[in-house]
Amino acid sequence: MFQHIDARFCSNCGHTITRRVPDGDCRVRDCCDQCGAIHYVNPRPVVGTIPVWDDRVLLCLRAIEPRAGYWTLPAGFMEVGESSVAGARRETEEEACAHIEMGPLFSVIDVPAVEQLHIFYRAKLLNLDFAAGAETLDVRLFSESEIPWDRIAFRTVSTTLRLFFEDRSRGHYQTHTSEIGGSLQRAPE
Amino acid sequence: MFQHIDARFCSNCGHTITRRVPDGDCRVRDCCDQCGAIHYVNPRPVVGTIPVWDDRVLLCLRAIEPRAGYWTLPAGFMEVGESSVAGARRETEEEACAHIEMGPLFSVIDVPAVEQLHIFYRAKLLNLDFAAGAETLDVRLFSESEIPWDRIAFRTVSTTLRLFFEDRSRGHYQTHTSEIGGSLQRAPE
Repeated sequence: MFQHIDARFCSNCGHTITRRVPDGDCRVRDCCDQCGAIHYVNPRPVVGTIPVWDDRVLLCLRAIEPRAGYWTLPAGFMEVGESSVAGARRETEEEACAHIEMGPLFSVIDVPAVEQLHIFYRAKLLNLDFAAGAETLDVRLFSESEIPWDRIAFRTVSTTLRLFFEDRSRGHYQTHTSEIGGSLQRAPE
Repeated sequence: MFQHIDARFCSNCGHTITRRVPDGDCRVRDCCDQCGAIHYVNPRPVVGTIPVWDDRVLLCLRAIEPRAGYWTLPAGFMEVGESSVAGARRETEEEACAHIEMGPLFSVIDVPAVEQLHIFYRAKLLNLDFAAGAETLDVRLFSESEIPWDRIAFRTVSTTLRLFFEDRSRGHYQTHTSEIGGSLQRAPE
């Protein structure tokens, strides 16, 4: 979940980068005055699922930084060439080795401080044949009262879980949008 | 709306890039064997609005490629440091000089072929004081029957407009997800 590396050299031709506003633009960009390339940097989508079995939700205990030793919904950076749904499924399979039926879009949460946009889909576990993936120490099902709220890895995850249980208690699921502000738990540098 | 430039040099140290699977990963990445940087590439969010005045929707006639001379909802690449809502508002102001009240999330449309994720919010025009921005030739309001369906710039826009009018006719707006597949109108190279 690290931020981008500030560019110093043009990835196209190797020349030194100039940070300036290109013609017709109004923002400073990483420009190459040798080959003319402009290297845009944009926020990155993080995609995941809320996998459910009866009244319980699947969480993963993170094996890696940031937030190793904290619980998360299965989620990770969306890869090029895949859709957000495909990415959410892939992350669920990679982190929890879980077999799911994908459900509707549930939450879209902006995290501008780390240049990310987190997107969670509801999902149903098809069976209990799940296990910790390479980046996971443990995978467990939690009822609402068992959720380790003080050991949740990211605020997008605790926000999504809270909204999920609120919707479930009123018997009606919606799609939610939210923004996590400046007091974000930042990843260790 | 162009795709990323394939990296040949490390933007951190200028050394030649090696395309290989890093330790602990399962995908080929742009790796630097001199400074150790791994340059991840992820899909980019495009954010925009559906600005409404009474029964009409605002569209912009594109002045720039791709799809110059075609109509679009105001939208563009989300910038680092802003939320998707803030980006959608900014694009609406830049392309249509329009003053809006932001509404709920309306559509989330994957376009994996061009490594993009398009997100549209509903919006209300606060007044008729709009005008063509720098990347726009003309801005007009269209009723449903006036929409130039064969002159819409992008399939994410025509899909969003179609879903919007369907929801409006049944008097109930939802959040929609969709994926635009292989037959996408690609930007000219």
